[in-house]
Amino acid sequence: MFSDFDPDLPSDYRRADILFLGNIDPDLQEGVLRQAEEPRLVAMDTIRLWIDIKPEALRRVLGGVDVFFANDEEVKLIAGDPNLIRAGRILQEMGPSLMVIKKGEHGVLVMGRDFVFAAPAFPCEKVVDPTGAGDSFGGGFLGYLDKVGKFGEEEVRRAAVYGSVMASFTIEDFSIDRLKTVTMEQIEERFNAFRKLVAF
Amino acid sequence: MFSDFDPDLPSDYRRADILFLGNIDPDLQEGVLRQAEEPRLVAMDTIRLWIDIKPEALRRVLGGVDVFFANDEEVKLIAGDPNLIRAGRILQEMGPSLMVIKKGEHGVLVMGRDFVFAAPAFPCEKVVDPTGAGDSFGGGFLGYLDKVGKFGEEEVRRAAVYGSVMASFTIEDFSIDRLKTVTMEQIEERFNAFRKLVAF
Repeated sequence: MFSDFDPDLPSDYRRADILFLGNIDPDLQEGVLRQAEEPRLVAMDTIRLWIDIKPEALRRVLGGVDVFFANDEEVKLIAGDPNLIRAGRILQEMGPSLMVIKKGEHGVLVMGRDFVFAAPAFPCEKVVDPTGAGDSFGGGFLGYLDKVGKFGEEEVRRAAVYGSVMASFTIEDFSIDRLKTVTMEQIEERFNAFRKLVAF
Repeated sequence: MFSDFDPDLPSDYRRADILFLGNIDPDLQEGVLRQAEEPRLVAMDTIRLWIDIKPEALRRVLGGVDVFFANDEEVKLIAGDPNLIRAGRILQEMGPSLMVIKKGEHGVLVMGRDFVFAAPAFPCEKVVDPTGAGDSFGGGFLGYLDKVGKFGEEEVRRAAVYGSVMASFTIEDFSIDRLKTVTMEQIEERFNAFRKLVAF
């Protein structure tokens, strides 16, 4: 471990329905996961660093989660397969029933056990700062699932679009400034714009 | 001009409804365009080479076409803008009312005068040879428009999906081998699979 940081969850956090293991050291993710009391859904994110220096620990955590957020490069790297779809299937074998593959400006690909969903990124003419887009996506995705309380295929597809909507707002300004002012109405408006974007 | 190649179109070719200027020297494209007799729709493609060595001629041809097929890098390069949507708008100002931006495994973005359409690439586990995917896309796109004989927004959206369908078959085998055996039924089946892929 790189520091003394070792999260000890408050008891009400331990009983959360949805647990999101952000991209910290997989050993710490494992420690947090162990403290959770029967979460209904566990998601995790990671970064290239942990794939390189802690592949074993990363795989262990992967074995205990339902949703894996990663970008396309990370998925191929962990799986050791240059074909994204095959790589996603390989990681699903390791644990997560849902692969949520973030591709930045190219959108997102969600692989379930028996469906694949793809959404483009929202076409933005004004991109101020892409920092935090991935985390906003994760927040929007899991926040929507938490709100509806169901994790079926339909909910997951919509969650991916809400995640994309949140990410598209985040990049319009620095830090999370845009998220501080965005309204539910604007979010719903953009959600509907996504429908038009892909309709044929 | 690099060679003596200077196409002289047979008279029935000159009366084609749809003219597709493939990615040859823009001076030659211009010569072909001049021979066409009132085409209803003119499309063009290009490659990086012509952007680098014949930017003026390329812009002239661009001024006389309705549809521009290009990849995202080419669009940004010609427009001189790193934001793809703004870059596409700049090129539309130069002539083409339709920008069809091919992004390979990341799908396609179509910009009309007053709509934007995005389609992901079909998730393929078996990719044998991506050569020709872009041209298959162009053929499927224009072939569909030719078949329906209308070039409105709805037709264009579906054309982009048919183009993506054809490209997704092409990469499943070497050269155009897969296109030699594909059936209309398989094409329609994959078209419908695209609907499921993006539905939410």
